[in-house]
Amino acid sequence: MTGQFPAAPEWDVEEWMNTDHPLDITQLRGRVVVLGAFQMLCPGCVEYCIPQLKRAHAYFPQDEVAVIGMHTVFEHHEAMAPQALRAFLHEYRVTFPVAVDRSGGAHGHMPRTMRRYEMQGTPTTILIDRAGRLRTQAFGHIPDLQFGAAVMALMREPVAHTRSAESAGEPADGCSALGCSLPAELADI
Amino acid sequence: MTGQFPAAPEWDVEEWMNTDHPLDITQLRGRVVVLGAFQMLCPGCVEYCIPQLKRAHAYFPQDEVAVIGMHTVFEHHEAMAPQALRAFLHEYRVTFPVAVDRSGGAHGHMPRTMRRYEMQGTPTTILIDRAGRLRTQAFGHIPDLQFGAAVMALMREPVAHTRSAESAGEPADGCSALGCSLPAELADI
Amino acid sequence: MTGQFPAAPEWDVEEWMNTDHPLDITQLRGRVVVLGAFQMLCPGCVEYCIPQLKRAHAYFPQDEVAVIGMHTVFEHHEAMAPQALRAFLHEYRVTFPVAVDRSGGAHGHMPRTMRRYEMQGTPTTILIDRAGRLRTQAFGHIPDLQFGAAVMALMREPVAHTRSAESAGEPADGCSALGCSLPAELADI
Amino acid sequence: MTGQFPAAPEWDVEEWMNTDHPLDITQLRGRVVVLGAFQMLCPGCVEYCIPQLKRAHAYFPQDEVAVIGMHTVFEHHEAMAPQALRAFLHEYRVTFPVAVDRSGGAHGHMPRTMRRYEMQGTPTTILIDRAGRLRTQAFGHIPDLQFGAAVMALMREPVAHTRSAESAGEPADGCSALGCSLPAELADI
Repeated sequence: MTGQFPAAPEWDVEEWMNTDHPLDITQLRGRVVVLGAFQMLCPGCVEYCIPQLKRAHAYFPQDEVAVIGMHTVFEHHEAMAPQALRAFLHEYRVTFPVAVDRSGGAHGHMPRTMRRYEMQGTPTTILIDRAGRLRTQAFGHIPDLQFGAAVMALMREPVAHTRSAESAGEPADGCSALGCSLPAELADI
Repeated sequence: MTGQFPAAPEWDVEEWMNTDHPLDITQLRGRVVVLGAFQMLCPGCVEYCIPQLKRAHAYFPQDEVAVIGMHTVFEHHEAMAPQALRAFLHEYRVTFPVAVDRSGGAHGHMPRTMRRYEMQGTPTTILIDRAGRLRTQAFGHIPDLQFGAAVMALMREPVAHTRSAESAGEPADGCSALGCSLPAELADI
Repeated sequence: MTGQFPAAPEWDVEEWMNTDHPLDITQLRGRVVVLGAFQMLCPGCVEYCIPQLKRAHAYFPQDEVAVIGMHTVFEHHEAMAPQALRAFLHEYRVTFPVAVDRSGGAHGHMPRTMRRYEMQGTPTTILIDRAGRLRTQAFGHIPDLQFGAAVMALMREPVAHTRSAESAGEPADGCSALGCSLPAELADI
Repeated sequence: MTGQFPAAPEWDVEEWMNTDHPLDITQLRGRVVVLGAFQMLCPGCVEYCIPQLKRAHAYFPQDEVAVIGMHTVFEHHEAMAPQALRAFLHEYRVTFPVAVDRSGGAHGHMPRTMRRYEMQGTPTTILIDRAGRLRTQAFGHIPDLQFGAAVMALMREPVAHTRSAESAGEPADGCSALGCSLPAELADI
């Protein structure tokens, strides 16, 4: 367990863009993660979420804050295929890593990561702390003042113990001085 | 000829959306035409051009001003196919007629209507007067104040002669009391 | 008489700024007049009305459209005295002529021009046609698209007769080929 | 001494609004202070600084963050007298405390607090930490993302020692476990 905050569910991703290797929550441990779930044809995402993620990516030090997009397509699937997303990212000058959420298959139209996080729609802004715990999940737009404050609040949480615990070779079950996270495979309902 | 202003080149269209019949310049004679050339993945189009066309469509009487979009795709063709455009129009609540410019084929990537008008890119805003003449063509964004004034200036030009000439059964060569337009098929280079 | 539209009431002004001589409606005959009634401490005026008047002043030819501000103070009189207004105009780079509406005196706090026009508050946007007739009066903000269209609609109304009538030395009772306006002193209730 | 950061100069204030008692830095020890220096007739202040201070005042808990305006008039003194400021605060719905910086007198037009902080103009945004130290001073506008993050960074700095030191009755010379501040009267050059 992780105290009062649940471990952030691991991501189930078909394809990554703007990065030469897949990313996952375990690997990002130690950094604050800003995850923006969006659809390229969602007007609110284009007007608010994407620009805010770009501002966060430009402003916060990347070794402390990882800004990541998650393309959670739950409608107009053909119009928002990976090839179209790639064109979108190019035209909108998005340079932070973007994941393509794995399609839901038999489970219907909601893609898998979106379902794991029980998102209500797009955009959804998710903040994950340095210990991999889900701290904020908001459907709709968070104004920049609150958003900047929330990211900084997580940046200023102590992480020394977490890191030393990991480097000390603690057991792989995800436990640290801060608590124990469920292994990613179990978090995957 | 049409006096000092050239006849607006006829459109070469693959498909129409938001209308149950194809539109052309001859048929729209008598109305001011606001033609917005855009690409669904062009940020400036999405931020400025589409909202302005929507405002014009909502504000001006539709029997006097025809607001029309022209999807002039010259890059990322696969990402902006008609099916994707249809999803875009749905999500952005675009209800005015939109034409899909015919792809350039052997002529390269610039679609045919775009080439006829010698557009420089997207967005391009085009105003066509009640007599079918090309009066304004601007690459980039026209602020609303100027745009509203320009549309109204064309609305207030006299058209009685044009209309009566047409209703009087003048020859089909496009002549009217205001002048003679090239037939659409000739204007099509 | 002036047909269906009333003559615009003459202005009752204490002081003019940004002009070396007083202006009045009779003198502006032949030009479209955009009159923006505002208060320098009215947030909606500062955010919308003043910038719109500046755009109109910059865009429309000044020999065809006269953009004029009217400072109609009906509250916080001491804070919005002429000296304060002068500082405001300087800081906000307002270069079009601005009139100080004459204080209401015994009639209470509403200044005189404001009362003549029966304005509801600030900002109020007023359009006066080339023949000096009141054509539009709107409390609150008019979006630029409509505003630009409305100004142009008045610019395109025929004025040749009016002007020649005036230059032909017609009687001073305000009659023209377009009709007869009440003399300013009578319009002043 | 206060380590690497200087003590924030005490304020020299003629009059307070929106508070029933004068405020000073010593008294606000323990809270983060957001001080916005503005002039009511400064367009950038009205468009950016005042709205941002209002957002901060509404969002951050007031027992942790004190949002304060400082009216630093260095031009158009007559137009921005306290009475005018009071009308401005009323119309712009400003409810956080606002100080009137003491006029410079023989020292010229720059008011005293403004001179102590060596401000370059208005708006100037100043952040003071819980220990009364000047941490950020920026002329012009800080975007909300950075601003929110900067305030939160100060909110998350440890203050327990400071407070217990104070409550433990340490000497009045401004020393605490974090260091020693110059007494306000000495900081006043």
